[in-house]
Amino acid sequence: MIARRGLLGAAALAAGTLPLRAGTAAAAPAPALRGSGDLGLVIERASGSILLIETSGRTAIGRVEGLGDLSHAAAVFSRDMRYAYIFGRDGGLSKIDMLRGALVARIVQAGNSIGGAISDDGALIAVGNYQPGGVKLFDSASLALKADIPASFGGAGARSKVVGLADLPGRRFAYSLFDAGEIWVAGLGANGTPEVQRFADVGRQPYDGFVTPDGRHYVAGLFGEDGLARIDFWQAEPRSQRILEGYGRGEEPLPVYKMPHLRGWAAAGEKLFLPAIGRHELLVVDRRSWTEIGRVATHGQPVFAVARPDGRHVWVNFAHPRNDVVQVVDTLSHEVVRSITPGRAVMHMEFTPRGEQLWLSVRDANRVDVHDTRSLERIATLPAQAPSGIFMAARAVRIGF
Amino acid sequence: MIARRGLLGAAALAAGTLPLRAGTAAAAPAPALRGSGDLGLVIERASGSILLIETSGRTAIGRVEGLGDLSHAAAVFSRDMRYAYIFGRDGGLSKIDMLRGALVARIVQAGNSIGGAISDDGALIAVGNYQPGGVKLFDSASLALKADIPASFGGAGARSKVVGLADLPGRRFAYSLFDAGEIWVAGLGANGTPEVQRFADVGRQPYDGFVTPDGRHYVAGLFGEDGLARIDFWQAEPRSQRILEGYGRGEEPLPVYKMPHLRGWAAAGEKLFLPAIGRHELLVVDRRSWTEIGRVATHGQPVFAVARPDGRHVWVNFAHPRNDVVQVVDTLSHEVVRSITPGRAVMHMEFTPRGEQLWLSVRDANRVDVHDTRSLERIATLPAQAPSGIFMAARAVRIGF
Repeated sequence: MIARRGLLGAAALAAGTLPLRAGTAAAAPAPALRGSGDLGLVIERASGSILLIETSGRTAIGRVEGLGDLSHAAAVFSRDMRYAYIFGRDGGLSKIDMLRGALVARIVQAGNSIGGAISDDGALIAVGNYQPGGVKLFDSASLALKADIPASFGGAGARSKVVGLADLPGRRFAYSLFDAGEIWVAGLGANGTPEVQRFADVGRQPYDGFVTPDGRHYVAGLFGEDGLARIDFWQAEPRSQRILEGYGRGEEPLPVYKMPHLRGWAAAGEKLFLPAIGRHELLVVDRRSWTEIGRVATHGQPVFAVARPDGRHVWVNFAHPRNDVVQVVDTLSHEVVRSITPGRAVMHMEFTPRGEQLWLSVRDANRVDVHDTRSLERIATLPAQAPSGIFMAARAVRIGF
Repeated sequence: MIARRGLLGAAALAAGTLPLRAGTAAAAPAPALRGSGDLGLVIERASGSILLIETSGRTAIGRVEGLGDLSHAAAVFSRDMRYAYIFGRDGGLSKIDMLRGALVARIVQAGNSIGGAISDDGALIAVGNYQPGGVKLFDSASLALKADIPASFGGAGARSKVVGLADLPGRRFAYSLFDAGEIWVAGLGANGTPEVQRFADVGRQPYDGFVTPDGRHYVAGLFGEDGLARIDFWQAEPRSQRILEGYGRGEEPLPVYKMPHLRGWAAAGEKLFLPAIGRHELLVVDRRSWTEIGRVATHGQPVFAVARPDGRHVWVNFAHPRNDVVQVVDTLSHEVVRSITPGRAVMHMEFTPRGEQLWLSVRDANRVDVHDTRSLERIATLPAQAPSGIFMAARAVRIGF
């Protein structure tokens, strides 16, 4: 484990050569006092590092290295927005102090994992694991293990891969068991032992899932059949229901270059915009009836469809080989209002919390771009090392992130 | 102007006798490094001070005095959640550094004012003034005046009181002219001059207004007639429409002890819960059709109806003389699920951003209570001097606050 820190101004930056000041936090000068509400980070997958950014001046303020395999990595944030928790593909769970620009704790908690979540009270970090299949809960302060919940099914010792892990109100987490076709909800009981609620037969091969911004519904995409599974947790006896059955995977499916991320759901006012698997389309779903009310033809197979926080626009990126373009969709007219070509391998997009800026990563150009979301024009660009995921600290105050 | 600071642990607190360390920021020791995402403040009206709080440990961390007349005071927060801007009834605009616990700037910008807002990019502070009637825009860093927009109407030099000021996406603000019966939207053009869009004849005496959480609709309550005015800013040519006409003020109106705050709107999933003027009721409004779909009988005349961030519950407080009680309403069943009696003069309620805690002020008991929003039980209590408004820094990431 190597912790490095570097808090510096934007002027010191040059592409791929962000200076690093090695050393322990104790030896370094105290960082300047600053608020943490405008902080964020960019995953630099190839180098196992993150770039710390701030969105007020739109600059990089440091880099933290030694984070292991950051393929498909994701991040959540402490409720004071000081600490970031990074989930690596290698089962690594790293705790970063964004104010000091330092790695403060790191464990490797599984062999292969796929993201995590933080409880609404900020006390628990949950990680969803492929291998061994299950969920582990950790104390967010110390990263001490609080519970290990194997995703057992079938009675013969089999364990399922866990996908689509998201927080629910009430210090709970919902997730899907890919191999078992189940959705589980887990938390800790009053005595600290795990409490699990199981929903069986939700559909074949749930491959990702999300919680609606109000924490009411959990929705899982199904790879093994044509539809999605949904649970309404506001009902006295929640149960899983199939929605959007036969939405189109059956009619001449295209080869799927990359599984879309349902977590990149876009809840825009009364509608959800979901990437269709293997098709050059977004599905538009009515949030009240959970039925399809339209489709939007897109440049390629959508990977992420992300709503601007006011819901008026959805920004979409695409799977290889059409991943050099992003499109902006008007959520009233369902029309593409702009296509932008930032460059090869646009991996991820993240809005500032009130939506006036969109940050996107252009992996093959070693660049992060910032767009004004009214003019849609690029207003800043920052060098980064093969950037992928971008995560803002304000996620700490959202449900289902 | 007196700036005082005191950053301290909870153990040092005793009711009404929070120790203060007077002095300049330069002379004081550097405060400990901390994130700002879990900060908040409580208005202490009688003493012209604010109590700084944090919601992770649920403690007070300091007090800032010298803020003038804080009747009806409100606060907004900088995008990094370090600074609070306090709007006082006396026209005072105070900028507080929450990390240092210090007043860093204060101006008296009008004779009588009624709240303000911060633009989505964090650059502009807007204040709505009664006297002289109008809106002023300030630079959020320096508090330098950027624009003065008189609420002129009628052609004879008359100026209207301004109410219901709220931010809209795109660095704009919407507000109502009580005397003119108009709604205006103002911002700064590219060259820094004010740009104002006027909507006339919206209804008689708009007395408060709010922007929906998506920034799409502005709604103004009408004191002079039975209904509300609504503008949908997503339309190509927005116009004001009357909604909820004849909702009940006409049928044997009760004396109005306190005008309810529409800003304490509760957007709960598909519904809005609005305090009815002069009646012991909440109106339940469908967010899609903007029609009344139900009423909830309550303990008294509602003042604030605030939705838990997941929308499942709405908490309500009441006007004098029934202001010792708060009620919790289930937004699915429209039933009151719990009545709680914290004590005389419950003035305000504020949720933590993910809704696991509710903070409420009990003015006459010099107390702030924290409730767990699942069990509804009180889990902490803090001494405060005649507390009224409670404001969390996470408001910085919300639209329309």
